[in-house]
Amino acid sequence: MSSEKIENTYEKVVELAKRRGFFWPSFSIYGGEAGFYDYGPLGVLLKDNIIRIWKEAYLRENALMIDTPVVVPRAVFQASGHVDKFLDIAAECDKCHLRQKLETFTKSAGFQEVFDTVDSGLAFVNEHVVKCTNCGARITRVFDVRQMFFLPDQGSSGDLFLRPETAQGIFINFKILNNIFRGKLPMAVAQSGKGFRNEIAPRQSLIRMKEFNMCEVEVFVHPEKKYWAEIDYDEDITICPRSSPPLRVKAREAVESGLISSNAMGYFITLTQRILLRMGISKERLRFRQHEKNELAHYSFDSWDAEAELDGNWVEITGIADRNDLRNHEKTSGESMSVSTDEGDIVPSVIEPASGVDRIILSVLMHSIMTRDNGYTVLSLPAEVAPYHAAVFPLMKKNGMDQLAREIYRRLSMIDPYIFYDESGSIGKRYARQDEIGTPYCITIDGTSLEDGTVTIRERDSARQIRINAEEIINHGLLGNPAISRDKFSGQSS
Amino acid sequence: MSSEKIENTYEKVVELAKRRGFFWPSFSIYGGEAGFYDYGPLGVLLKDNIIRIWKEAYLRENALMIDTPVVVPRAVFQASGHVDKFLDIAAECDKCHLRQKLETFTKSAGFQEVFDTVDSGLAFVNEHVVKCTNCGARITRVFDVRQMFFLPDQGSSGDLFLRPETAQGIFINFKILNNIFRGKLPMAVAQSGKGFRNEIAPRQSLIRMKEFNMCEVEVFVHPEKKYWAEIDYDEDITICPRSSPPLRVKAREAVESGLISSNAMGYFITLTQRILLRMGISKERLRFRQHEKNELAHYSFDSWDAEAELDGNWVEITGIADRNDLRNHEKTSGESMSVSTDEGDIVPSVIEPASGVDRIILSVLMHSIMTRDNGYTVLSLPAEVAPYHAAVFPLMKKNGMDQLAREIYRRLSMIDPYIFYDESGSIGKRYARQDEIGTPYCITIDGTSLEDGTVTIRERDSARQIRINAEEIINHGLLGNPAISRDKFSGQSS
Repeated sequence: MSSEKIENTYEKVVELAKRRGFFWPSFSIYGGEAGFYDYGPLGVLLKDNIIRIWKEAYLRENALMIDTPVVVPRAVFQASGHVDKFLDIAAECDKCHLRQKLETFTKSAGFQEVFDTVDSGLAFVNEHVVKCTNCGARITRVFDVRQMFFLPDQGSSGDLFLRPETAQGIFINFKILNNIFRGKLPMAVAQSGKGFRNEIAPRQSLIRMKEFNMCEVEVFVHPEKKYWAEIDYDEDITICPRSSPPLRVKAREAVESGLISSNAMGYFITLTQRILLRMGISKERLRFRQHEKNELAHYSFDSWDAEAELDGNWVEITGIADRNDLRNHEKTSGESMSVSTDEGDIVPSVIEPASGVDRIILSVLMHSIMTRDNGYTVLSLPAEVAPYHAAVFPLMKKNGMDQLAREIYRRLSMIDPYIFYDESGSIGKRYARQDEIGTPYCITIDGTSLEDGTVTIRERDSARQIRINAEEIINHGLLGNPAISRDKFSGQSS
Repeated sequence: MSSEKIENTYEKVVELAKRRGFFWPSFSIYGGEAGFYDYGPLGVLLKDNIIRIWKEAYLRENALMIDTPVVVPRAVFQASGHVDKFLDIAAECDKCHLRQKLETFTKSAGFQEVFDTVDSGLAFVNEHVVKCTNCGARITRVFDVRQMFFLPDQGSSGDLFLRPETAQGIFINFKILNNIFRGKLPMAVAQSGKGFRNEIAPRQSLIRMKEFNMCEVEVFVHPEKKYWAEIDYDEDITICPRSSPPLRVKAREAVESGLISSNAMGYFITLTQRILLRMGISKERLRFRQHEKNELAHYSFDSWDAEAELDGNWVEITGIADRNDLRNHEKTSGESMSVSTDEGDIVPSVIEPASGVDRIILSVLMHSIMTRDNGYTVLSLPAEVAPYHAAVFPLMKKNGMDQLAREIYRRLSMIDPYIFYDESGSIGKRYARQDEIGTPYCITIDGTSLEDGTVTIRERDSARQIRINAEEIINHGLLGNPAISRDKFSGQSS
């Protein structure tokens, strides 16, 4: 690999994303709307790949998939506690009118407090001098802001809300799903879809959005045993237990020693690492941090965050929470949520591995961006994550090379539609364009191709080429094709 | 094939869908909310397959993919005309308070009128006696209802709306996308995502929903030529030109004779048929009907609907509209939407093949459901559309057959996660369960398997079996595997 990691990757990724079409701010011709982003042509393909890896990993765990509406009647979020408790304690500067979460102001002022009521926030700013991070005026105005978007009086019996998480759509269907699962436990249910939060201060492109993509799994387990399956994973994970420095451990041992509270929690922490690594997150830049008590959401009593290191900051990309939602819905709806087992009827507990797809995408891009010795940018994405599996080029747009290249492209597209065709500009420029968007292979049709049907295949990270018969890839595709496995590119000149 | 078509398929499909987990009404434990449906475990897999077929077909056309927010600021729909014109003319019975589109009442009364203003509707009910379809009282109350859901004052500068179509997210990004496409025309942009309409009278499960799934393509073409590519498809299509009986034609000839107004319209009608057939729509139950002038949406001046025959009714599943939206956004935003060509700058026209994913799913299920001679139900889905590609069974749960079956399942799942494992109940019952959900192949591990490593593979439609070595499928998967091609099942006993 002739490439090196680069610093300040965030700005480089955001610039690349906009210029090449991974993502950009929405509604720009009408002045934009903070917190909303579009995925462009490359971003959609990348996002689909990320979601597919998650989905297939959970199908292998026999998870049931579900897809429920993003528009939800009030009763559901009344029962879940979101209507009453899913509020931000906000503050606004009286002078410059900057509006932030109160904690954003207090943390900047060096305080560690966490606020869950307006009263506690007001009391704090009366006692302590908290200054506006923008203009320096003293902050005195504290109020709460509903984090859920709402559609007043547009439902059959009142308000509708946009869901802030996909989870409730699973909980309220628990009995239907468990019947389909023939009444068995443990049972995992997975949902990929959009969530919405009316954030006070959206920021950093894909990090804090008002409309975002989630992949959530609710694992229903026996409330005392919290057991999923034997942890047959043997890899190391880096964990930060509550108020403790990072440790390198094996999940099974961490569960046995009590550092991780249950088998299910340990299992899904390890599976989460496997999935994230497969997506292209760097293992050295991934850790699992246990929530402090005062960080826990209103529905959770233990939680571990998978955090990716991004330009020196640790950012949550997946949260694995131990939740207890079914009892709320049982109480409010009057419908039983219990399951019959050999030991009597029980209401299951829930372990929830919930991923922020957008944050994962940003992290994968930031962990993959490299600079070659010649200064060019390379996105060293896993082949199954890259938007395109290959690009097809004629070396020159003449002598029949372009006709043959288009024919190879057409035939290859029939078995793999994730192929890009390009015949404009120098061959070096075309390689550079594909390196920058992470395309693992470039297939070039040259004069020799016209004679013997062979083509060159150039591998992205090594920039090395081999020559093989075009039929090898037209018949068997690129991904997983042994004729172009990575070691084939080791001994050749670039 | 030992199965036959069945009548009243709608009720049968809806019952099957709920019982086995394709789809069911949302929020049932809280009394439900009309117009919202959940996709269950089988429905999610089926829907993903439907969307993937669409997506890959358009990638082969070099379409750019995009994914834009469902929450949209007012300015966008002000420019598109939706704020002012996307209204239903509704009527409510003063006596029983039944609320419907006015046209629903007038059509039941035998009138053909279409209403686009409250005034014209009021004038009509004053002049004619239109009776309530429920209680028979005369209808006199007419008003308009906004079809868009809205989030009042929750945007940075006013109201937000939930998009009623994905198209506007493409139009407002036209220049960004065309730059990525290097300024070329024609250019196709495709988006799959959710749309929302506050329907007055949602009905028939997946047919008229308030929250629904769309696959839309905007094809930007030269406004006079409206040319996409040579129509190299030679298959017949059934068309109903405006005010004309059905004709069986070839698209190319229909374009040449002027029956279809442009090359692009003819091309995408034919491509739409190809895609729908691949999804499992029956060719004999598919037609393309041109809109009458008074049916056209406010943004369209020619439109053809792909209609599926469902229990004797023709239902729109894809619409292919000739639109002219870019000029509105150019005017309102002040941003140029023109493209430089050899013949000067032009603002492109748009041909839009827009599919309702939910309606396609219902239609595919209704066109696939069959009854075997023995009375059992079979879903004769295309293999690539079926939720599972195969099920793995031990013939009996003893003598090591179950261990071997689980091992084969585990290994097969590594290369294809769409495999179901079942060891409960008689083998006949397990076959019947899989037939009912459309699984094309059942793999059974029996006593002989323990001796020589072979398994039986039973094909769904013929119910016939062949015996092959398990490694054949573990290494090469099910789909497209020549060892289990359809003709292999023709000569064997069932």
